[in-house]
Amino acid sequence: MSTLTIAHLRETLAEIHDLNAAMSVLEWDMEVMMPPKGAEARGEQLATLSALRHRLATSSELDRMLTALEARASELDSSEACLVAETRYDFLRATRLPESFVRRLSEAQSAGYNAWLTARAESDFPAFRPHLEKLVDLQREAAELYGYEGSPYNALLESYERGMRVEMLRPLFAQLGECQKNLVARITDQDMHQRFDWLGGTWPEDAQRRLSLRVLADMGYDLDAGRLDTAPHPFCTHFDIGDVRITSRYDAHDPFSALFTAMHEGGHALYDQGLDPEWRRTPLAEAPSLGIHECNSRMWENIIGRGRAFWTRYLPALREAFPGRLDNVTVQQIHEAVNRVEPSLIRVEADECTYNLHVIIRFELELQLIEGNLAVADIPDAWNALYKEYLGVDVPDDAHGCLQDVHWSHGMIGYFPTYALGNLYSAQMFEAALRDIPGLLDDVASGNLLTLREWLRQKIHRIGRRMTAPEIVKAATGKDPGAEPYLAYLESKFGELYAL
Amino acid sequence: MSTLTIAHLRETLAEIHDLNAAMSVLEWDMEVMMPPKGAEARGEQLATLSALRHRLATSSELDRMLTALEARASELDSSEACLVAETRYDFLRATRLPESFVRRLSEAQSAGYNAWLTARAESDFPAFRPHLEKLVDLQREAAELYGYEGSPYNALLESYERGMRVEMLRPLFAQLGECQKNLVARITDQDMHQRFDWLGGTWPEDAQRRLSLRVLADMGYDLDAGRLDTAPHPFCTHFDIGDVRITSRYDAHDPFSALFTAMHEGGHALYDQGLDPEWRRTPLAEAPSLGIHECNSRMWENIIGRGRAFWTRYLPALREAFPGRLDNVTVQQIHEAVNRVEPSLIRVEADECTYNLHVIIRFELELQLIEGNLAVADIPDAWNALYKEYLGVDVPDDAHGCLQDVHWSHGMIGYFPTYALGNLYSAQMFEAALRDIPGLLDDVASGNLLTLREWLRQKIHRIGRRMTAPEIVKAATGKDPGAEPYLAYLESKFGELYAL
Repeated sequence: MSTLTIAHLRETLAEIHDLNAAMSVLEWDMEVMMPPKGAEARGEQLATLSALRHRLATSSELDRMLTALEARASELDSSEACLVAETRYDFLRATRLPESFVRRLSEAQSAGYNAWLTARAESDFPAFRPHLEKLVDLQREAAELYGYEGSPYNALLESYERGMRVEMLRPLFAQLGECQKNLVARITDQDMHQRFDWLGGTWPEDAQRRLSLRVLADMGYDLDAGRLDTAPHPFCTHFDIGDVRITSRYDAHDPFSALFTAMHEGGHALYDQGLDPEWRRTPLAEAPSLGIHECNSRMWENIIGRGRAFWTRYLPALREAFPGRLDNVTVQQIHEAVNRVEPSLIRVEADECTYNLHVIIRFELELQLIEGNLAVADIPDAWNALYKEYLGVDVPDDAHGCLQDVHWSHGMIGYFPTYALGNLYSAQMFEAALRDIPGLLDDVASGNLLTLREWLRQKIHRIGRRMTAPEIVKAATGKDPGAEPYLAYLESKFGELYAL
Repeated sequence: MSTLTIAHLRETLAEIHDLNAAMSVLEWDMEVMMPPKGAEARGEQLATLSALRHRLATSSELDRMLTALEARASELDSSEACLVAETRYDFLRATRLPESFVRRLSEAQSAGYNAWLTARAESDFPAFRPHLEKLVDLQREAAELYGYEGSPYNALLESYERGMRVEMLRPLFAQLGECQKNLVARITDQDMHQRFDWLGGTWPEDAQRRLSLRVLADMGYDLDAGRLDTAPHPFCTHFDIGDVRITSRYDAHDPFSALFTAMHEGGHALYDQGLDPEWRRTPLAEAPSLGIHECNSRMWENIIGRGRAFWTRYLPALREAFPGRLDNVTVQQIHEAVNRVEPSLIRVEADECTYNLHVIIRFELELQLIEGNLAVADIPDAWNALYKEYLGVDVPDDAHGCLQDVHWSHGMIGYFPTYALGNLYSAQMFEAALRDIPGLLDDVASGNLLTLREWLRQKIHRIGRRMTAPEIVKAATGKDPGAEPYLAYLESKFGELYAL
């Protein structure tokens, strides 16, 4: 047998990567381009590609290659050693699931997604219910196949936020829930609802799109290596460093919503365009967790996009986009408008003070579902009760309630907590960026958004999976990840805005 | 070993089909949506999928399955027997090519396509030349791997028009060349160039697109199972009966070109939407040859779209599309305008009298390339000389010459002859349709295009590969395919138009 080298391993990894990329193209097309009657066949195609990917990712050849390279660990440099270790991690995890299970899951995901599209449009939870039941059963089965300590939910969390555990999330979310509910109460108790008459009327989609593209370009998103399309729910996907696509949606009654969506997805896109080209088509050119990915999107959307410095520069751009509408509106008014705090029904439109509460609600429900303490049929009632408890709002229908998010339709359970972690990471990392980059806020205020992108590229994007999310945060900030920087950020920003 | 059934075979065929479909999605995306920097990775992805498909299509498992089913041939019904035979045919052909060759070819195709896009835009044949040299070498290698009798070109023809041979094309093309050159000379000698002042000015793309969509809907193209997009070169592709997409392009100076493109690609799309759903994901839901596919597109584009009956109905629609521009234009004037005969440089814009001459030129060049009698470097000179000989035109640059078509950039050699065969089949089949459907031209004149679609569905689409192209033509028309019906059609139509 000839000596196995990293190059051989990379050939096999490239095939797995290419299948992943092909699946992502099919999924992007499904959500952005596919005509309705293509849905059934698309589900079949994705299930077949899933099964083939699984065959490659669990092959005895790959196992032999890894064993041979593990035996020669001392000859490998640190990136190579990490590649072998990460590939072994992926291999072990993949081999827990039999191919037939992977195919069944993929079929249920495609069917679930298409059922959800209609169910949400018609606010018809019963139509979605059998799909969700199947998906929850499959995820409970997956947890058993993966194996776990403590809660079976830990097995699912691992897919999205490696190393994260229910035991760590519970106290963290208790702290966040407590503090944020408190903050919200102090704000809304004041009954300081400013008037925003100037926000009335409609805001042309064209102009919103052009403004989004302008800001994306300033952020350094390379449109020769990407696209901005419209889709029912915004997302970012990539097939390669050279092809990173985002989708957005437009609300004719809100001039900001599409812009912040674009900045959010653009933040994800900068990560994927910034992955290490030397290690493309390997796990080293992947993010180590969704939370650390979300750190980028939330930083761009909220800390930058909903920050005062940003609007110093972009109020003129906003005025250009909507001529004659905003001549008398000030930066302060914009800053207030984009930071209105109001408990509401929809997560993706939630302000920063309430956002994590939406996540906590989903975490509680998912945990009960996976631990067998909640039936799918009872989700709407449980959902509505938690929205009353955490946010004080009454859910008028399931479209504005438990059908609002796409994730469960894809069978993604264990995903939501990464949104809250992304918020925490974003504040902690931004503190470090402020220390590291002299005049960062002046750069933002003058439209130079590239210094921040460059910092993120070095501290996060280029690293790929050579470090875990907590290691990345600690290396950049000097501290383990925690809730304090985020809570301090909220206190400071909203304390000032609402004169608390 | 458990008894192998057709159902087992269909599971494996479904995987192969799904990989094909995934590749088609990636190719559609590459030509319609992909940002430029995605090209390299897309080539890699397609090469990997090619290699995986090849592995499945040549697996010893598939071989064993076929052998078992062949041994039980007497138990199979006729469709099942045909499925086994067709799969064996595909298997034998696929096993001639080693996987490494398939991967090299796929990589060269993607690189060739992207190089061609730029080379054509800049009319820079030398930039494309090394790619084409590689592709021609690969095709010559493929011919040797496939094996052949007579010319190596036969091995390549087989991929596009099964059973067709150089020995059959030579006399056929000699006859077509002779008769069509003659016809063109009689028309252009008359110097009867009518004046078409009313065609001057520009024709808005929006209106052209709406008109195309209206006619496509009347043809029975189901847009819930398809899309119409814009691409540098028009094509039709399908991933399933429920997802059949076409692309078109718009010429602001010509109100007809996009419409005929849409009808042409729409003709292809009706075929793919009309395949037998019972046999989806198998070779029985595929066309037996490109010529018989092209029979549909040319029939819709030319015999219908450039026919008088069609314009009786659609002149009002044309007037609506371009208000006030065509109030004084008659059906006769439209019929003359869309049938102007003029030797020209570009195949896809050629009139019916000269179209086959463009095909014959490409056939002659390809034959020389594959038989080793022409170097790629000498293509531009040889091309230009043949255009002078057959069409009497001087080629101003390679963009309007040998770089005009996409096919060679994909390494597709042996494809062009199917265009001429499609013309021949279309006239012969339409004669039969006129006999079979009472009042067909009245239907067309009243906008009922569905009777023809239904006839084509029964006579062609539903059959799939259960019959070969010549068998389909013979079954529908009572005669073997030949040149006479097409030549008679040209004589009659253009004899009348030009009062020959």
